[in-house]
Amino acid sequence: MEQRIRNKKFFDKIVTAEQAAALIKNGMTVGLSGFTRSGDAKVVPIALAERKKSTNQPLKINVFTGASIGDEVDGILAEADMIHKRLPFQAEKKLRTKINSGDVLFIDQHLSHTAEQIRAGQLPAIDVAIIEAVAITEEGGIVPTTSVGNSSTFAKNAKEIIIELNMAQPLGLEGIHDIYELENRGQRMPIPLTQIDQRIGKTYIEVDPQKVKAIVITEKQDNTSSIASPDAETEQMAGHLIDFFRNEVNHGRLPANLMPLQSGIGSVANAVFHGFLQSEFSDLKVFSEVLQDSVFDLIDAGKISYASACSITLSPKRAAEVVSSIEKYRDKLILRPQEITNHPELIRRLGLICINTALEFDIYGNVNSTHVMGTNMMNGIGGSGDFARNSLLGVFVSKSTAKHGQISSIVPMVSHVDHTEHDVDIVVTEQGLADLRGLAPRERAKVIIENCAHPMYKDALREYFHEACKRGGQTPHMLEQALSWHVRYQQSGSMLAAQEVLI
Amino acid sequence: MEQRIRNKKFFDKIVTAEQAAALIKNGMTVGLSGFTRSGDAKVVPIALAERKKSTNQPLKINVFTGASIGDEVDGILAEADMIHKRLPFQAEKKLRTKINSGDVLFIDQHLSHTAEQIRAGQLPAIDVAIIEAVAITEEGGIVPTTSVGNSSTFAKNAKEIIIELNMAQPLGLEGIHDIYELENRGQRMPIPLTQIDQRIGKTYIEVDPQKVKAIVITEKQDNTSSIASPDAETEQMAGHLIDFFRNEVNHGRLPANLMPLQSGIGSVANAVFHGFLQSEFSDLKVFSEVLQDSVFDLIDAGKISYASACSITLSPKRAAEVVSSIEKYRDKLILRPQEITNHPELIRRLGLICINTALEFDIYGNVNSTHVMGTNMMNGIGGSGDFARNSLLGVFVSKSTAKHGQISSIVPMVSHVDHTEHDVDIVVTEQGLADLRGLAPRERAKVIIENCAHPMYKDALREYFHEACKRGGQTPHMLEQALSWHVRYQQSGSMLAAQEVLI
Repeated sequence: MEQRIRNKKFFDKIVTAEQAAALIKNGMTVGLSGFTRSGDAKVVPIALAERKKSTNQPLKINVFTGASIGDEVDGILAEADMIHKRLPFQAEKKLRTKINSGDVLFIDQHLSHTAEQIRAGQLPAIDVAIIEAVAITEEGGIVPTTSVGNSSTFAKNAKEIIIELNMAQPLGLEGIHDIYELENRGQRMPIPLTQIDQRIGKTYIEVDPQKVKAIVITEKQDNTSSIASPDAETEQMAGHLIDFFRNEVNHGRLPANLMPLQSGIGSVANAVFHGFLQSEFSDLKVFSEVLQDSVFDLIDAGKISYASACSITLSPKRAAEVVSSIEKYRDKLILRPQEITNHPELIRRLGLICINTALEFDIYGNVNSTHVMGTNMMNGIGGSGDFARNSLLGVFVSKSTAKHGQISSIVPMVSHVDHTEHDVDIVVTEQGLADLRGLAPRERAKVIIENCAHPMYKDALREYFHEACKRGGQTPHMLEQALSWHVRYQQSGSMLAAQEVLI
Repeated sequence: MEQRIRNKKFFDKIVTAEQAAALIKNGMTVGLSGFTRSGDAKVVPIALAERKKSTNQPLKINVFTGASIGDEVDGILAEADMIHKRLPFQAEKKLRTKINSGDVLFIDQHLSHTAEQIRAGQLPAIDVAIIEAVAITEEGGIVPTTSVGNSSTFAKNAKEIIIELNMAQPLGLEGIHDIYELENRGQRMPIPLTQIDQRIGKTYIEVDPQKVKAIVITEKQDNTSSIASPDAETEQMAGHLIDFFRNEVNHGRLPANLMPLQSGIGSVANAVFHGFLQSEFSDLKVFSEVLQDSVFDLIDAGKISYASACSITLSPKRAAEVVSSIEKYRDKLILRPQEITNHPELIRRLGLICINTALEFDIYGNVNSTHVMGTNMMNGIGGSGDFARNSLLGVFVSKSTAKHGQISSIVPMVSHVDHTEHDVDIVVTEQGLADLRGLAPRERAKVIIENCAHPMYKDALREYFHEACKRGGQTPHMLEQALSWHVRYQQSGSMLAAQEVLI
């Protein structure tokens, strides 16, 4: 324990999860550590939900996090009807249901924006921050665990802090973090980071020790899940993208080791990274939000030389391996606050290649990342906007169809826009890749339809575009039909016209 | 002339506009100086159009600029069917017609992106740059005139350069410019600018003298136009916004002199700035793209203490006054490349308040800045995206109706998205102001409808939202009706339902 709590004054603050949860009152705003299900505060939120269940007293709070937290925590809070407002991202089924029914108010934010808005007083003030730690330093600093998220901003701006000291997280994580907190806008200096392996901050979160009101000892592990293995289609998408990179290198537009890579979470991004394993590319660098299994596979294979991110989210099997050999990765990894990993200043400066997943995109290259049929929230925009709009290459990937072909991921007009055509350079499906750089909308439509759409939907897309062009416009549309594919799906269960419906 | 051309070697390069234009061949890509109709290359493009008319030989070129150029130049090039591709912005009637008919391929870009894409080889290479200058320095550097635009990037990357030395532009402009050119991504340092009055570059554009193939002497003036004076509605909008700023100051969220202001071009933004004249605010700072009449009025009134921008675009009357007393403004002005004025790194760091005009916005706060009825290009996104998404406060202004009330600027779903709800903090009409910070979509809808919509359209918007909520969702919509207001306008000339049509 002395290894974990290095300042004796803090021993007096050790309490149970229930006692710590008592600090949280109805109506408060709570900031939780956690990003992509890792490094999240776990036992205190659960104790809080138990209190609500057992006492049945009014208890509704605003829950701010880094990004998604473990299913167990978001799930239990949603189930207990304890969340008034939730931001900036989530990925839990029960919570999603409550969001879409209007019972939880969800603010879907760019992940780099939350810290700025808290600092500027544009969001409710944080009453209590709950931060998972591997250790508390002599100075009272918090050493985070497998993610940094918004923890430093929460801790700095909260009135009170609860620390979940997690003995199951290896002390070997210490030294991996680089915590750099920005000054207010108008008073800040340039962020000095110019290389992805550069350290610009401290290895712990500086806090006012007075604000630490409770320390809870826990051994609860990150509740991650396994990522779908590459399938034939995701492998095809990876192949298209790697061919494209190869061609860019051949034309001198990218160096032989490419530029630093960012990729969203999910099976497609994972497949693309797996694709690098068999490729000629090496000395790759990663500047991303989250490091998944594939990044560690590429480090092991000597393909990735350095990775900077905000969290490590591994499958249970891979997590055990990495945790037990964390020393091996220490000199190849940095974990930073999400405000830094996702900062426009750095994304633009470093020249990132950004690969993110689309739910659907339209013939002009506008992308919907979040809203099923324009209405129901899936997870949130996450960092995809921070990255795409400031990237050297903004890539969006999606299978060309969903629901066994009943949905075309390429539509005349997206039902919700998260990324405008201005910020989308490349779209990829298993059918092929469309390079949209330097193309006007009418040119984009042709290459998207011909290269990316599924053969089942190509003729209908061609016809829509052809008819729309007769009416003219920079971005030709027939507004009365623009969303008709979605309407047809809602009414008939398929975007295919009646005569084409799959048997 | 020795004052204007300070290196004798350059005297030999003086030719007529026709001779200079002969350097431009069919199929070339030409980069023109010019931003918001000021400082644009004028006589050589016009001579080129004359050549096409008189010889009738094939001549089609790509035309890249800073932003809009004078109507005369874009108009004559469009009329002569000489433009293959045009980027990143325009505001000319004949050209707009050719864009919407599909005869000119227009790439509507964030104004900070063009330079990056040229540098990265993602756009056709610039064959010839034509840059307006007040002087050529001893080193062969080009001193720009009333705008900087993309001129330094064009000059650096072009194979050949033509200079239009404009004797009608006052030599007193020299020293106002601050030219800072960025290195390639991945190799660049932080941009050292932390204060809006800071100089970080040179007062001229450095060029390889070998590349300067022709110098044309001209006295042709900027072809600007007068801006509509504030009317009752724009004055109301200015009033709502100034009340909002006052309230922010009272709550400690903004300092007494606010934060640096950016405003788009146009009558509403102009009215807001005029509103400051009568207000208690002083020591205001401007960090914007373009400085219009109102900024100089505010400098004269002692309200604005410093202004940094990319161009000065004044009404003919105001231009004459400013030009003749340029010395008075020299220590209060800097003109920078548009890549700097619009750079995400700086916009985010400096904490700008950004005020831009919307064509329409929807009940959830998504904004359409560019496409009339989702299809026809008006001018382009310009810098509104660069600014809004990195701002401290992203404000969009629009009158609540257009076409004498037949169009509601607040609609169930915008017909085109340029700015997503993630980047829109405040919307303002003459009816009122909606503060969307910290609100989930369902909350946003209520405040937008109640505060901003015109009374004629309020009930219909309330009903749409109410019915959509019955179906559920994070962003409730009825897709089959979402664009029905636009369709109704296209079919009947009014967004009002039949029984409500105005008499």
